Amino acid sequence: MISYTDTSWSDVSKPTLIIRPELAKANIAKMLEKAHKNKVRFRPHFKTHQSAHVSDWFRDVGVTAITVSSVSMAQYFADAGWTDITISFPVNIRELEMINKLAKRITLNLIVENPETVQILGQRLEVPIHIWMKTDTGYKRSGVQWDDTRALLALATKIKEQRQLDFMGLLTHAGHSYKEPGRENSLRIYEETRSRLTTAKVNLEQAGISTQLSLGDTPSCSVAEDFTGIDEIRPGNFVFYDLQQLMIGSCQAENLALAVACPVVAKNPERGTVIVYGGAVHFSKDFAEVDGTRKFGIVAQGDSTQGNGNTWLFQQEAYLAAVSQEHGTVKLPLEMLGQLHIGDLLLIVPAHVCLTVDLIRDYRTPAGERFRAWS
Amino acid sequence: MISYTDTSWSDVSKPTLIIRPELAKANIAKMLEKAHKNKVRFRPHFKTHQSAHVSDWFRDVGVTAITVSSVSMAQYFADAGWTDITISFPVNIRELEMINKLAKRITLNLIVENPETVQILGQRLEVPIHIWMKTDTGYKRSGVQWDDTRALLALATKIKEQRQLDFMGLLTHAGHSYKEPGRENSLRIYEETRSRLTTAKVNLEQAGISTQLSLGDTPSCSVAEDFTGIDEIRPGNFVFYDLQQLMIGSCQAENLALAVACPVVAKNPERGTVIVYGGAVHFSKDFAEVDGTRKFGIVAQGDSTQGNGNTWLFQQEAYLAAVSQEHGTVKLPLEMLGQLHIGDLLLIVPAHVCLTVDLIRDYRTPAGERFRAWS
Repeated sequence: MISYTDTSWSDVSKPTLIIRPELAKANIAKMLEKAHKNKVRFRPHFKTHQSAHVSDWFRDVGVTAITVSSVSMAQYFADAGWTDITISFPVNIRELEMINKLAKRITLNLIVENPETVQILGQRLEVPIHIWMKTDTGYKRSGVQWDDTRALLALATKIKEQRQLDFMGLLTHAGHSYKEPGRENSLRIYEETRSRLTTAKVNLEQAGISTQLSLGDTPSCSVAEDFTGIDEIRPGNFVFYDLQQLMIGSCQAENLALAVACPVVAKNPERGTVIVYGGAVHFSKDFAEVDGTRKFGIVAQGDSTQGNGNTWLFQQEAYLAAVSQEHGTVKLPLEMLGQLHIGDLLLIVPAHVCLTVDLIRDYRTPAGERFRAWS
Repeated sequence: MISYTDTSWSDVSKPTLIIRPELAKANIAKMLEKAHKNKVRFRPHFKTHQSAHVSDWFRDVGVTAITVSSVSMAQYFADAGWTDITISFPVNIRELEMINKLAKRITLNLIVENPETVQILGQRLEVPIHIWMKTDTGYKRSGVQWDDTRALLALATKIKEQRQLDFMGLLTHAGHSYKEPGRENSLRIYEETRSRLTTAKVNLEQAGISTQLSLGDTPSCSVAEDFTGIDEIRPGNFVFYDLQQLMIGSCQAENLALAVACPVVAKNPERGTVIVYGGAVHFSKDFAEVDGTRKFGIVAQGDSTQGNGNTWLFQQEAYLAAVSQEHGTVKLPLEMLGQLHIGDLLLIVPAHVCLTVDLIRDYRTPAGERFRAWS
C-alpha cells in the first residue's frame, strides 16, 4: 500500500496501471530466448499492452513481427513503425477498405475460416496478403476442425486459387488451456495441440500444400520447452502475466509486472473490507477462481513501489472480492485493514490483465514515468 | 439481422451502440411521471448513457438534477450545462482539487460513510457542498449500517460540525435487488429498503437532525409505485434497460432501447454458432443467468432497425453465449444461422448495458444519426 501522504505518488488520483519495466523486459527476454532456442518465429500478441512505448521494449531486443486483435490496433502499431502484422481475428469484411490501405503499407497477415470470406477477399483485395487458416484444435470457439481433412483441403485450395492470397498455413489458439489450471494440464494441452496441428499439416502437405504452423496461448508458451515442428508462437499475456496466469501455473509471483493503483475511498472493518476506486469499468468482470472463491484481483504488498526492484508480496487473504461499475470491494486481513487510511493507494494485480489494460489505458512506472495505450 | 448489402448500414464496420430514441424517451417519460405522481425529486443516474446528447432528452422534459459515478463524469456533465450533480461514489480525497473546482461552478452533492473522510473534507473544502450519508440497507457493499443508530448519529453529527458541509440525509443503493430476479422480489426488497431508511430517519430526527431519503436502483424504481416517505430517486439503467433487467422483471422486451450492432465474421453451422466482432472489450464480461445458462446478450430481431418504430423480437435460443477479448460466440437456431452471411450485422441487447456503453461509446440511431459518449 502507498500512503496518502507519500508525495511521490500524489499525481495518482484515479485507477492507474503501475507497470514495472524491469520485470516486463525480463518476461520478454525469457520468451524470446525460448523462441530462439527452438528456432521458431516470435510474433508476440500486442493486444495485452496496446502501447507503442511497451512495443519499443520488444523492438529493442530484435522482434520484428507482431500479432494484434483488430484492424484499428494494426493501424496504430503500423503508425508506430511495425511492418509485419498479423490480425489474429477472422477477417471482418466490413473493414476491407482499411485492410486494403494497411496492406499497401506493411506485410499484412490475415486469418480466415469460411469459404465465403475467401471469396470476398479474392474479389476485393487490391494487393497481395498472407493468409492463415484458423484451425480448431480443441478450444471449440472457431476455426476449421483439425481432423476434418476434407474441409481443410477445400479451404486451403480455395485460398490458393485467389490471386491476392498467399496461403501460409494453420493457426490455432488453444484457449481451453485457460480452463484447466496446472502446469501439467497446460503441457498436456500444448502437446495435444502440437500433435493435432502436425497431423493436419501432414494431410495438407500430402496434397502438395506447403503448410506452416502457428500457435499462441500464454499458458502453452510459458510451460512448453520443445517447439519442434512449430514455425511461429504468438503469446501476449506473458509480458505482464496476471492472477489467472498465476493460478494456471504459467508464472510465479515474481513475474507479475503490472498492478492497478486504486485509491481507498471507504473502510468497513466490521466486514473486513475496504472500498476502492477501481470497479468493472477498470478491471472488467473477469475473475480467477481460487479454491472456490472468485477473485477479481489480488493485493500486491511490499516496497517494490519505490522502484528498487524488490518483489511484490501476495497473500491469498487480501484480494478484490467484488466489482460494480466504479466500486471495488477488497477483502483484507484485519491487521492490514487497520493500517490503511482513506486516500491510501492499494496495488491490485488484476485477474485478467488484457481487459484491465484495455479499460484503464494510463500507465505509470513506480518511478513516475507516464505513457498511454492507444485510444 | 442487417444484410451486408444494405447500404443504409454500410457505415457500421465495428461494434456500435444502436439506440432507439423513441423507446429511451418513453422510458424517461414513464419514470418521470412516476416521480411527479409521488412528488419525489427525480435525479437520474447518467452513468448508464454517459452522453450529453442523451442528457438533452432529460432536460427537454424538465429534469434539472442528476447523478453520476465519478468526478470526471461530473465535470463532463457540468460542461454540458448541468448545474446540480450528485457524485454517487464515496468521496475520493485524491480528487479534492477537482472537487473544489467543480463545487465553485455547480451545486455539488457528495456521499460519505467514514468519519476520516468527513474530517478531511472539513479541513480542505473551499466552498460549501451538500453531503449525503451512504447507508447500507442490505446490499452489504458499503455504507453505515441502517440500524446502527449510534454510528449514524455520530457521523451525522460530525458532518454537521463541519462549516462547509450541509447534511442532506441518507442515501442508499439496494444493489441486492439485482440478485433476486422477479417483480415480487424487487418489490419486497424495495419495501424493506424504504422501511429501513424510514426507521433510520426517525432515529436521526429524534435527535434533531433533519434527514432526507434518497434511493436508486432500477429494479426498485421500475416496479414500485408508492414512494411515500422518499425524497429522491436515482435510477439509471431504466433509460435503455438490458437483458439483466428483462430477466429481473424490471421491464418488458418492448422497453429495450439499445442493442449492439456486431459484424458477423465467421459461421460454424456444425456448432450452431457464428462468431461476431463484439467481445469482452465491447460487452464486458457481465452476464444474465437464464435457466442455468449464462447469456452475455440476446439477439434482437425484427425490422425496427429501419427506424419505423416496430418492436424488436427475441427468442431465448438466439444469444451471446461467450465473449473473449474481441470475439463473441453467438448461439443461433439453425434456421436463423442459415440465413446469415459473412458481413451481416447482428443486433445484440447486452446483459448489462452500463458496462457495454462505457466500453463502446459510439452511438448510432437506426436512422443513421451518430454521437459519442464522453471520453
